[in-house]
Amino acid sequence: MSERSFLRWIRSRIGRRGGRIEIDSGDDAASVRVGGERVLFKTDSVIDGVHFDARTARPEEIGHKALARCLSDIAAMAGVPAFAVVAMMVPRRSGEAYLRRIYRGMERTARSFRTAVVGGDFASHPGKLAISVALLGETEGLQPVLRSGARPGDAVAVTGPLGGSILGKHLRFRPRVREARELHRRIGLHSMIDVSDGLAVDLGHLCEESGVGAVVYERRIPVSAAARRLARRDGRTPLEHALGDGEDYELLFTLPAGKAGALERSGLGRVIGEVVRGRGMRLQRTDGSRQALPPAGWEHVTNQPG
Amino acid sequence: MSERSFLRWIRSRIGRRGGRIEIDSGDDAASVRVGGERVLFKTDSVIDGVHFDARTARPEEIGHKALARCLSDIAAMAGVPAFAVVAMMVPRRSGEAYLRRIYRGMERTARSFRTAVVGGDFASHPGKLAISVALLGETEGLQPVLRSGARPGDAVAVTGPLGGSILGKHLRFRPRVREARELHRRIGLHSMIDVSDGLAVDLGHLCEESGVGAVVYERRIPVSAAARRLARRDGRTPLEHALGDGEDYELLFTLPAGKAGALERSGLGRVIGEVVRGRGMRLQRTDGSRQALPPAGWEHVTNQPG
Repeated sequence: MSERSFLRWIRSRIGRRGGRIEIDSGDDAASVRVGGERVLFKTDSVIDGVHFDARTARPEEIGHKALARCLSDIAAMAGVPAFAVVAMMVPRRSGEAYLRRIYRGMERTARSFRTAVVGGDFASHPGKLAISVALLGETEGLQPVLRSGARPGDAVAVTGPLGGSILGKHLRFRPRVREARELHRRIGLHSMIDVSDGLAVDLGHLCEESGVGAVVYERRIPVSAAARRLARRDGRTPLEHALGDGEDYELLFTLPAGKAGALERSGLGRVIGEVVRGRGMRLQRTDGSRQALPPAGWEHVTNQPG
Repeated sequence: MSERSFLRWIRSRIGRRGGRIEIDSGDDAASVRVGGERVLFKTDSVIDGVHFDARTARPEEIGHKALARCLSDIAAMAGVPAFAVVAMMVPRRSGEAYLRRIYRGMERTARSFRTAVVGGDFASHPGKLAISVALLGETEGLQPVLRSGARPGDAVAVTGPLGGSILGKHLRFRPRVREARELHRRIGLHSMIDVSDGLAVDLGHLCEESGVGAVVYERRIPVSAAARRLARRDGRTPLEHALGDGEDYELLFTLPAGKAGALERSGLGRVIGEVVRGRGMRLQRTDGSRQALPPAGWEHVTNQPG
């Protein structure tokens, strides 16, 4: 089965906009009307062997990641997280001390983002550890930023360095909640997504949703120290890691080209390319040549091409 | 590890009432304030081998059950379900046709309860099928009914027959959303919980949260046909099944004794006992004798005492 095909099928069926559904499941989070209020709503899961390795990850990090992935999705809408509920599916022989450490990791992260965990379900089962989190967010006066708002001529930017998150950042990243609010308030973003699948894949999503193409400048891509370290080990280049690795949870966004200077001065992000008419993405190499940039990357844990 | 002890620990840490949290995770759902609106919020999971058996359950039933358990929790607060998000964790070799059937089962149930599925996350993994659902509900002018509102002198009642749900009802039950609203509007319920763990266990929860005891009359307990069928097979009595089996998802509630006649005339429920001062539950046998009713039951699928 193709995950992508099933997700596309789901999306074709659910969450059609209209009525009380303002933004559907194709974006980082849904936006719905409850009474007079706009509410952002998102769920996500982490599973042992897919999103972390329980043999090596600290339990606090697992709890952090389970919640932080949802926080990052709310950030990608420029929303404010508010309330979370957590469903833990735990192996039958898990010790209570271990589960408490997971929970405390989640709790600490919740607190630092002023989010209250208001409900928890818990089931022991014969399988591996899995945690699903659902998060409610608010917009507090800012219009949600969608994946679909990129316009030709926009600058493309990211909030931080990319690549090599498998070396540790994927368990410890800080969701860019505050940064997203500040950027949107100061600059008025056109579109946004968080980098969970990798720069090339997520820029592909953004372009597809917006019906545009993009050019990314090699020399502008912020390559992380981890991407360089990983490249020394595995023979791929640091650039490949910055383009292809997932789970950096930096924000990838577009803004009016005229605001690029303001962005750079703010210290909150860095321009890496531009939105163009048409479809497809290209990489402009340092020597000025251009090549196709396929929306592909590598998955974590297993490190399979994805 | 004891599930109960971990849940108690979680509850001691999360969701303290106060501020924007009106009702915490110790009830069927949390109630929080978003802007000026009261929102009910709940998550729950179903796991292959624990809550259903993928070898025998129809995929549509699995989808139904995943959502309907959450719907039942919102019903138990007399709330109105509105929006759901769904996280599916599926075995790597699942066929897309199979997953679509699960999804369609969920969708059909959502539609019949005017609930919109607005977001879906999907991850394939090496383990078994698990589905987490999170549900947002509204109160639409009715005060949420808590587990903690039972008062000495209240009548104890249920919405329908109990026991033997393992023979099929646990996959096909109808959450009592409409019934709960109507009951609360007509009668003004004092407390409510849905029967997921079994009558004795869930009445125990309700008594504990309310700081009261209860007497249940054997001759009033609505024993289901399934409980009788199961009893013929396994040598337990139909009454044991009605008291101990879980997953009927009927509502168990208390009301002012003076409204018991109105309840019976409404056809929406049946009085089975009364709330008393003090602690502990007793069963009044048909011969008038009374015996202790321990808050215990039997778990499904595995049929282990739980």
